[in-house]
Amino acid sequence: MATSEFDLIKRYFTHRGRHTVLGVGDDAALVKVRRGHDLLISADMLVAGRHFFRDADPRMLGHKALAVNISDMAAMGATPRWATLGIALPAADTRWVQAFSRGFMALARRFDVDLIGGDTTRGPLNICVQIMGEAPHGLALCRDGARAGDDIWVSGTLGDAALGLAALKRRITLKPAERAHCAARLHTPTPRVALGLAIRQIAHSAIDISDGLLADLGHILERSNVAAEIELSELPTSNVLKRYLDRVVACGALLAGGDDYELCFTAPRSARARIERAGRSTRTRLTCIGAVKTYRKGEPRLIVRAPDGAALRVVRGGYDHFR
Amino acid sequence: MATSEFDLIKRYFTHRGRHTVLGVGDDAALVKVRRGHDLLISADMLVAGRHFFRDADPRMLGHKALAVNISDMAAMGATPRWATLGIALPAADTRWVQAFSRGFMALARRFDVDLIGGDTTRGPLNICVQIMGEAPHGLALCRDGARAGDDIWVSGTLGDAALGLAALKRRITLKPAERAHCAARLHTPTPRVALGLAIRQIAHSAIDISDGLLADLGHILERSNVAAEIELSELPTSNVLKRYLDRVVACGALLAGGDDYELCFTAPRSARARIERAGRSTRTRLTCIGAVKTYRKGEPRLIVRAPDGAALRVVRGGYDHFR
Repeated sequence: MATSEFDLIKRYFTHRGRHTVLGVGDDAALVKVRRGHDLLISADMLVAGRHFFRDADPRMLGHKALAVNISDMAAMGATPRWATLGIALPAADTRWVQAFSRGFMALARRFDVDLIGGDTTRGPLNICVQIMGEAPHGLALCRDGARAGDDIWVSGTLGDAALGLAALKRRITLKPAERAHCAARLHTPTPRVALGLAIRQIAHSAIDISDGLLADLGHILERSNVAAEIELSELPTSNVLKRYLDRVVACGALLAGGDDYELCFTAPRSARARIERAGRSTRTRLTCIGAVKTYRKGEPRLIVRAPDGAALRVVRGGYDHFR
Repeated sequence: MATSEFDLIKRYFTHRGRHTVLGVGDDAALVKVRRGHDLLISADMLVAGRHFFRDADPRMLGHKALAVNISDMAAMGATPRWATLGIALPAADTRWVQAFSRGFMALARRFDVDLIGGDTTRGPLNICVQIMGEAPHGLALCRDGARAGDDIWVSGTLGDAALGLAALKRRITLKPAERAHCAARLHTPTPRVALGLAIRQIAHSAIDISDGLLADLGHILERSNVAAEIELSELPTSNVLKRYLDRVVACGALLAGGDDYELCFTAPRSARARIERAGRSTRTRLTCIGAVKTYRKGEPRLIVRAPDGAALRVVRGGYDHFR
């Protein structure tokens, strides 16, 4: 396949942005980080057949490839600014690339992110996105600041994306409207950038829920060296997921399904009103799901309390009853 | 393959550096760009079977994957500072990864580059490196500043890497010592960072020679909208390449082979002494190979003058005689 075909493809990704002095085409891109700000960087590599179906709709894939990275910025309370895109394609499929770039660039414009560089090459389908953002010195949110006594919050609702994936894998049957609802959550998530910015001077720690609530909250707990107890009945769910909560598949989706791209964060109890104001001002549903506790060696880091009062201890790969 | 196997692999790339506030393991890395400096970013994606042999030595591959990106920084006159690495591996081959990370991290240490993030996943072998560097405001070198009357310079010698590749492909037979010399140029190039820094306030434009002298000098000429004439007899070659210059394969390697990772730059004639001083202070051989000329529409952008005085006009994909 001639190099010129890939040159044609590069033009779908050529985009001169507002924050960029030089764009795609030079040895390197040149950008100016705002005075008084730190630079945040995150990268993700997505492989066909592992992170997405080989026949995934390219436009939605373009959206999601960027969205999951912008979500990393949201979880740091950073403003996403620049991205680079490395992509390997099995063939110079112009229609596929055009659709992919539409999804990618539409989200980029929506979040004012400039695509400033990258690489396009031939090979098994592989998408590597790097996102860069800014946060004022010292204000970036991390995973290690949670303190005993903090409230634990999540944004939006959890579980729909994983429920949609379970439906695609025929592990559950949903009605058409339900399938469509869940598919939108799965394929075209919305990163919570405004919320991240609104809570960054209030929250003690934050993470975006990509692997699943238990896994990602677990990261905060381990990095902060604290424990937590959350209430199963408090976890925010959509009307779709509610209908299936008696099913193991749906419970698993809620607690451990992943692909939610909501923020999970901890904040002092005294900041409840400010957090609720942040939710209103960013028009984001926020739910307090539990509390951070002191970690005691030998005891479980994370307990999920069921409505009947029973405690589910979370262990790697699953959970079992405790006490 | 269990996720935990890839967790093990991640540890080969965990490295807390001097320029980094947070490293691998958080949602994002946080770095501080120096006051008064711009941020330069470049990314490359390398696919097995296309950019490197599938059975390439992993240690040398680790070196080269980073070297080609640091070279992009050198061509901008930037100081390389941070890198991210996205890598897809077909299997959790610990030995392979250990060797790869050795090569990668050794070069990173040598150039004081911190590996601050990335991703490790399962899939067909694919290596995506992003490099970030700094240059004082306004001092970064670009491709578009060449002016008529400038001298054209190249560092080091050209053609050995491509000659080595030709030998591997059995298009030419080299003696063992010659093969070893060329293999070192091909597999473990040294980016010209110190030179880039030394010339950045003198040169008008620069590029690193990755695709080949004619192609890369051509980029400068097009972006700067100028023309050039270079002398074939002036092109710096090693003693190895000199011996084979009567062979088409060797000429091709010299002019268009690529993988040299030397710098090609233009500078005013009045700056010759300063350029030569930069070469001495960085212990880099520098050779003036020609001059930039005014571009006249309809005339060739780049002419290579042969020793007999004949002019080879460079056209896409090759060159033919002109006049």
